[in-house]
Amino acid sequence: MKAIILAGGSGTRLWPLSRKSYPKQFLKLNSNTSLLQQSVDRLSGYLQMEDVLIITNKEYMFYVKSELKNMTEGGHKAHVLYEPTGRNTAPAILLGIKYCEEIIGVNDDEIMFICPSDHVIKPNGKFIDYLKNAEIAAKNGYIVTFGITPVRPETGYGYIERGDKLNGLSASMECFLVRAFTEKPNTDTAKQYIDGGNHFWNSGMFTFQIGVMKEELKKYVPNLWQYYDLKYNEFIEQFAQIPDKSIDYAVMEKTDKIAVLPMDIYWNDIGSWDSVYEILEQDTDGNSTTGNVITLETKGSMIIGGKRLMATIGLEDCLIVETDDAILVSKRGQAQKVKDMVTYLKEQNKKEVSEHTTMYKPWGHFTVLEEGNRFKIKQVVVIPGEALSLQMHHHRSEHWIIVAGTAKVTIADKEMFVHENESVYVPKSTKHRLENPGKIPLALIEVQNGEYLEEDDIIRYDDKYARLI
Amino acid sequence: MKAIILAGGSGTRLWPLSRKSYPKQFLKLNSNTSLLQQSVDRLSGYLQMEDVLIITNKEYMFYVKSELKNMTEGGHKAHVLYEPTGRNTAPAILLGIKYCEEIIGVNDDEIMFICPSDHVIKPNGKFIDYLKNAEIAAKNGYIVTFGITPVRPETGYGYIERGDKLNGLSASMECFLVRAFTEKPNTDTAKQYIDGGNHFWNSGMFTFQIGVMKEELKKYVPNLWQYYDLKYNEFIEQFAQIPDKSIDYAVMEKTDKIAVLPMDIYWNDIGSWDSVYEILEQDTDGNSTTGNVITLETKGSMIIGGKRLMATIGLEDCLIVETDDAILVSKRGQAQKVKDMVTYLKEQNKKEVSEHTTMYKPWGHFTVLEEGNRFKIKQVVVIPGEALSLQMHHHRSEHWIIVAGTAKVTIADKEMFVHENESVYVPKSTKHRLENPGKIPLALIEVQNGEYLEEDDIIRYDDKYARLI
Repeated sequence: MKAIILAGGSGTRLWPLSRKSYPKQFLKLNSNTSLLQQSVDRLSGYLQMEDVLIITNKEYMFYVKSELKNMTEGGHKAHVLYEPTGRNTAPAILLGIKYCEEIIGVNDDEIMFICPSDHVIKPNGKFIDYLKNAEIAAKNGYIVTFGITPVRPETGYGYIERGDKLNGLSASMECFLVRAFTEKPNTDTAKQYIDGGNHFWNSGMFTFQIGVMKEELKKYVPNLWQYYDLKYNEFIEQFAQIPDKSIDYAVMEKTDKIAVLPMDIYWNDIGSWDSVYEILEQDTDGNSTTGNVITLETKGSMIIGGKRLMATIGLEDCLIVETDDAILVSKRGQAQKVKDMVTYLKEQNKKEVSEHTTMYKPWGHFTVLEEGNRFKIKQVVVIPGEALSLQMHHHRSEHWIIVAGTAKVTIADKEMFVHENESVYVPKSTKHRLENPGKIPLALIEVQNGEYLEEDDIIRYDDKYARLI
Repeated sequence: MKAIILAGGSGTRLWPLSRKSYPKQFLKLNSNTSLLQQSVDRLSGYLQMEDVLIITNKEYMFYVKSELKNMTEGGHKAHVLYEPTGRNTAPAILLGIKYCEEIIGVNDDEIMFICPSDHVIKPNGKFIDYLKNAEIAAKNGYIVTFGITPVRPETGYGYIERGDKLNGLSASMECFLVRAFTEKPNTDTAKQYIDGGNHFWNSGMFTFQIGVMKEELKKYVPNLWQYYDLKYNEFIEQFAQIPDKSIDYAVMEKTDKIAVLPMDIYWNDIGSWDSVYEILEQDTDGNSTTGNVITLETKGSMIIGGKRLMATIGLEDCLIVETDDAILVSKRGQAQKVKDMVTYLKEQNKKEVSEHTTMYKPWGHFTVLEEGNRFKIKQVVVIPGEALSLQMHHHRSEHWIIVAGTAKVTIADKEMFVHENESVYVPKSTKHRLENPGKIPLALIEVQNGEYLEEDDIIRYDDKYARLI
């Protein structure tokens, strides 16, 4: 069995923590591992890491790789692919199939499991049992979706209605044909679903035999299927032309080979801060706080503090999320409206929607400390052995003051070492490079001066340090 | 008539905005003028600025002076005195009396009006009428307190119970002898007070003839009075030895010359964020927001935002106050508990209780942008024509990068000019001075390096720029 974890999403339902520049799947919310790491970890109970593929996008490649590198279970052995552009789930899955066939070398009998990268499921052992049973059904030619037994009349999810029971399976668990996929219901309908006992939450996970999925793609989405004949590299090159289609719409809702495996298990898609509150440990007052937080007569509240001191008095059922540049204070039960807030902020072109003050890069990270008229101050950290690409800015000069470690600095054709408590000046329109040749992180303060200080005033030169970003 | 405005308080009931380093009376809450400026302004309807004295403490001297300088009504003509140490109201008033007698030159017939620097009263014309009537009663030998007609059963104030009506006054308003000063009552008692109609809120304002107050001080607090015979300068020198006594306890509650002038007027002592909400203008949802704030389905809330984006969803009756280093989120009606919060934070030795990230100085101000292991980054702004005193640090070196204006820098015996986009290095244990010889504010970034980076690692040299602080 091969597993594909879809990790290209850039959701903002957990704004201000989750932003395009660092989305949900990379957040460490309920433990010291990220949701992505938990998703990979989950599979290690049954699969080898070599059998796990993670499909993300260019921008998140190095996040994914560093996340995997930091995993104890040899996560680095997993395969990391990226979509040149986001084209929805159907092309992503075809990309995975082609990679497995051409690069790994599998045949049509291979079973493939598809899952998101940002859900919480527990207990894991139970989940693995379900996975094994789904595999059996898939070997029998079914495309098996995982349906969660609903525990509340949730109006935020799509539901799967079960049909006849599948017979002749040597599975220890019951599996059913799918009668219908339903849209998000209203509360009354949702209640009926629960009472009826035939409807299950659509978890977005499914498994199938590669041969079967190929047949269905060929049958139902020929304009997508035509790209299958390309070699993997050509496929990547032409990826942008592939029609943007979700696998649900393209295949699941059309094929008659669709089945559902009901799972009676804890599942949470972390679709809002309300869901986050649900998975966090709470104290006797029902509070869940992290960071520099002090509460007084506060109950049933989640407070995710940052650097700043956060003091609350007499609050009940509130959600507070504090970041360097934005703070969200919401009533619990209303967190789904974060979506509306984010939409509004986008209309207002607020950079706080998409960018964090701290931006992670393959070479380390930087934080904007202050911006003003004609100046910007950044704190820059370079990982030992890493370097920024050779670059030039036309509209700004830069002062670097080293506060920790040793920098190897190239300015024009001069190379020099700059040590703690020393500074160096990079004039406008001058080629320069910053490297950390040492053994400890290099920390420096960059003071930019100029009439234009945006990130896009940069010319990168192709050299040994040239990177995707 | 002379007026004394007491502006030495360092209250933290409006934390995190009000802190010891920049307390309530200097805050601009309900307009573009501070509470202190409004207190001075209030008197300009009746008094000349030359008749106004402001008593503060050393630390706040330059705040007071710059506040007065920024007033249109010639506030700079007011007298500014400071208590060498805080010794409560009785010594402060004696200080004011001595200053008026010795420096200004008044006699015992002079009427003196005492008021706090951080209250809101309106309308002003009506207040001035009351003040004039109080003056008449004072001329008749009474110490006249200003009692506010209570509009709610407030348990947070002390009350003044009126006695017999004062006769033989040519005052157009009724004035009464005081039967008793009462402590903060419980709700039932407070309700009885309102129904009875004989109790008034103690506004902390009063007026008297200097001769009368001197008599009463002599009579009731001889151990305070003995200092009266000192010359003003000696009085200042020995100020720390003067017994710490409130004028209420020392005189008001003992003398039989005490009267009360009931005032039917809007009065707010801004004793909590709840009171602040009351004086702010609210939109149709009952919200009052300032700063970078976006509200969604939020009602009856006060949101004082700072630099960062503050987003609220589904809140009702909340108070949010955001500063660079601390955020308060409280339910409305519970703001008096800020006191408990501050007490707790003090026990925890949190610097956010007493210090702001931005510290104002006679020469300008600085903001701590970031602190880390062995480094600290400050943004420094020097007012045109101003300078820091000649100084030296033993544990840190400093890099200065000029981002705006021109600096005159003295390092050891070298003098130099440093311009925008230039930098200069100040080694440890080296005398240095920073000046702004130019016409626009000098803005620079200071990066400190060293093993100890606290403010107290400073040696100041006595020179033309030496100051109180």
